Amino acid sequence: MKNRLYFNSDNKEVQQTAFQAIEKEQNTMGYYALPEQDITPILEYCNSMADSVESIAVIGIGGSSLGAKAVYEFIKPVKTLKRKLYFFESTDPINIRTILEKTDLSKTHFLVISKSGNTVETFSIYKYIYSLKSDASSYTFITDPGSPLEKYAQEINASVLYLPENVGGRFSVLSTVGLVPLALVGIDIQALLEGAKTVKESFFNDGYLKETLLKKAVYYAKHHAQYHINCIFAYSETLKYFCEWYVQIWGESLGKSQRHSAFNVGLTPIGLIGPKDQHSFLQLIMEGTRDKSVTFIKIEDFDDDISIPNITLPHLEGLDTLNTLPFSKLINMQCDSVIEALKNQGDIPLDTITIASVTEANIGALIFYYELLTSLVGELIDVNTYDQPGVEAGKIILKKKLSN
Amino acid sequence: MKNRLYFNSDNKEVQQTAFQAIEKEQNTMGYYALPEQDITPILEYCNSMADSVESIAVIGIGGSSLGAKAVYEFIKPVKTLKRKLYFFESTDPINIRTILEKTDLSKTHFLVISKSGNTVETFSIYKYIYSLKSDASSYTFITDPGSPLEKYAQEINASVLYLPENVGGRFSVLSTVGLVPLALVGIDIQALLEGAKTVKESFFNDGYLKETLLKKAVYYAKHHAQYHINCIFAYSETLKYFCEWYVQIWGESLGKSQRHSAFNVGLTPIGLIGPKDQHSFLQLIMEGTRDKSVTFIKIEDFDDDISIPNITLPHLEGLDTLNTLPFSKLINMQCDSVIEALKNQGDIPLDTITIASVTEANIGALIFYYELLTSLVGELIDVNTYDQPGVEAGKIILKKKLSN
Repeated sequence: MKNRLYFNSDNKEVQQTAFQAIEKEQNTMGYYALPEQDITPILEYCNSMADSVESIAVIGIGGSSLGAKAVYEFIKPVKTLKRKLYFFESTDPINIRTILEKTDLSKTHFLVISKSGNTVETFSIYKYIYSLKSDASSYTFITDPGSPLEKYAQEINASVLYLPENVGGRFSVLSTVGLVPLALVGIDIQALLEGAKTVKESFFNDGYLKETLLKKAVYYAKHHAQYHINCIFAYSETLKYFCEWYVQIWGESLGKSQRHSAFNVGLTPIGLIGPKDQHSFLQLIMEGTRDKSVTFIKIEDFDDDISIPNITLPHLEGLDTLNTLPFSKLINMQCDSVIEALKNQGDIPLDTITIASVTEANIGALIFYYELLTSLVGELIDVNTYDQPGVEAGKIILKKKLSN
Repeated sequence: MKNRLYFNSDNKEVQQTAFQAIEKEQNTMGYYALPEQDITPILEYCNSMADSVESIAVIGIGGSSLGAKAVYEFIKPVKTLKRKLYFFESTDPINIRTILEKTDLSKTHFLVISKSGNTVETFSIYKYIYSLKSDASSYTFITDPGSPLEKYAQEINASVLYLPENVGGRFSVLSTVGLVPLALVGIDIQALLEGAKTVKESFFNDGYLKETLLKKAVYYAKHHAQYHINCIFAYSETLKYFCEWYVQIWGESLGKSQRHSAFNVGLTPIGLIGPKDQHSFLQLIMEGTRDKSVTFIKIEDFDDDISIPNITLPHLEGLDTLNTLPFSKLINMQCDSVIEALKNQGDIPLDTITIASVTEANIGALIFYYELLTSLVGELIDVNTYDQPGVEAGKIILKKKLSN
């Protein structure tokens, strides 16, 4: 993974303070330790799954589904996996029915994932599916130790797996929450963690990512009043759900009341996919209000050698310059052209992240990079990165409505 | 369609001026007339398609694909269609290969859609697919009359259909660009246009949408310096691609240099899907910077009667309040709860759009509503709503790179 910044921020003292805060945070927040975890128990559990199970279905929402989905959708197009993976993450009845039509219930194992054990969406869907297939052996529950959900699972004799301590939903993809569904379908979770570890080590052990991440975080924090919309512009369709994962971790972690002021602050995440969104959102970046930073994500090698054939179309000879070009080269040239056009504007903060190829290690690296960046920026804009008090009000109102 | 605003703007004079500008614009911009067009030629063309064609594949990007995709993905889950519809809209080689693997080339008809006739993405993909299947009868081209693409199509004896005059890409879904692929797969395009027409008539003939749309547009324009991020929060997975269409029309139309100043202005579109994004973006709306307006879109009747079964789960008895509730009612209660929670904040501009059900007429109405709103806001913030000069710079740089 390479990361090149096209802006500068040299406040060494602020950088150092932020780094120390994150170093200290490692003792209390669980996600930092995930790259080094022992995955033997997870692999043992996954290997015990019957070969007759052809699909895995996650019943979970938000932090319980977005991470696994991001990795699965990234790897799926390039690797033959041993099972399919579905996600029930909406109470939309049309959506529930559509996914059920795709799955063969008798060959599906369900993972019910809820940290608290009382997520409305998860349990309304679970109840519905349980009414269609009520043998406990078809379900595994992932929750916190001691939760009512654990007790329920034990009562019906279903499997239970646990979340590690102090790992919040949106930072949980590299824990059981993400690893179990991914390993069950044949994703190499060891490689995923190895990738995350390279980023972690580079950051904490004075590698190049320490300076880069600190510079970037300080720049985003320092200029957040102006550049408060942070776009990822990823040049591959495989990164579409990674963008959704990013939107959650960034928006829900950084949109807060400040700890030491009455201010509401927030950095707004936007996920874009190139070249498609050159024909949609790019105009707004180029000529709209100067409130956006853009991080381009490129894949160096798509490991796919299709090229534009050497054909001349009469009356369209101008397109011959495309001939013989590999698509992987074209898409990266398109990305470079947009970067250059935006650089020429002079007042749009840009950086590029390049990953070598579509592999588990590389998406693991990308995930940990964004987790670290989120933690750093949260620290620097003085918010509690790990809570989400703002979503409680709606839940309380719903609870009242349901009781009536 | 119902639309209720939870904010007020009573500047009648500004409203009247904007209305007159739009009335006048009808004479020059082609999209306003699309609801009343005669679709006989389109239906004749579509009926002539051989029954042996099982899939339609659009090769097009941006305005050439987003509209049809929005309608198709909305209707597909509730209607048995006669053909499948695929979209080639990326130069990502993994994406091209993945879609090709799903399609049977011998049973696929391709629609190559390009207004200008020289879109890099469209023609690199077309050349590749043409090298795999080089009989002209498998292709139909949709372009402007007199374009080099028309000449090419005629030279190879392929069918050509035309865009109506003065209809820009992102306003073209109700023209041949969207109607042809949709009719070919069995979407009722007459109903789609009827839906658009009800909105058009309500707006231009003093129906309730005239006042509502004018109030909303004036509010957005007047407060754009503060509320410059405009979220759609749609409570149904079926509206996911409608949101992508919205992001294009809003961002690309309104992110501009002002006509009579040196200012860069812009309203940033965000598409959210409930209840999923309650677990992602909602925290940022509730507690983040006060720079966002939110439009909730609800579907009254999902025409799907699945309910949460009357099951008590031991240790999880608190969830019994969900029992016997239809999912369609639950999802709308979730939406109402979030609306109430946001209303309680007091400083977030909200409105709700309710459509009765998942039908062609209702998505047609929604589309025309947003087209009108975009035109009104563009007029009011003093930009050229219909051009996109900002995307040219990147294209010129790419052209240079390709020539080298």
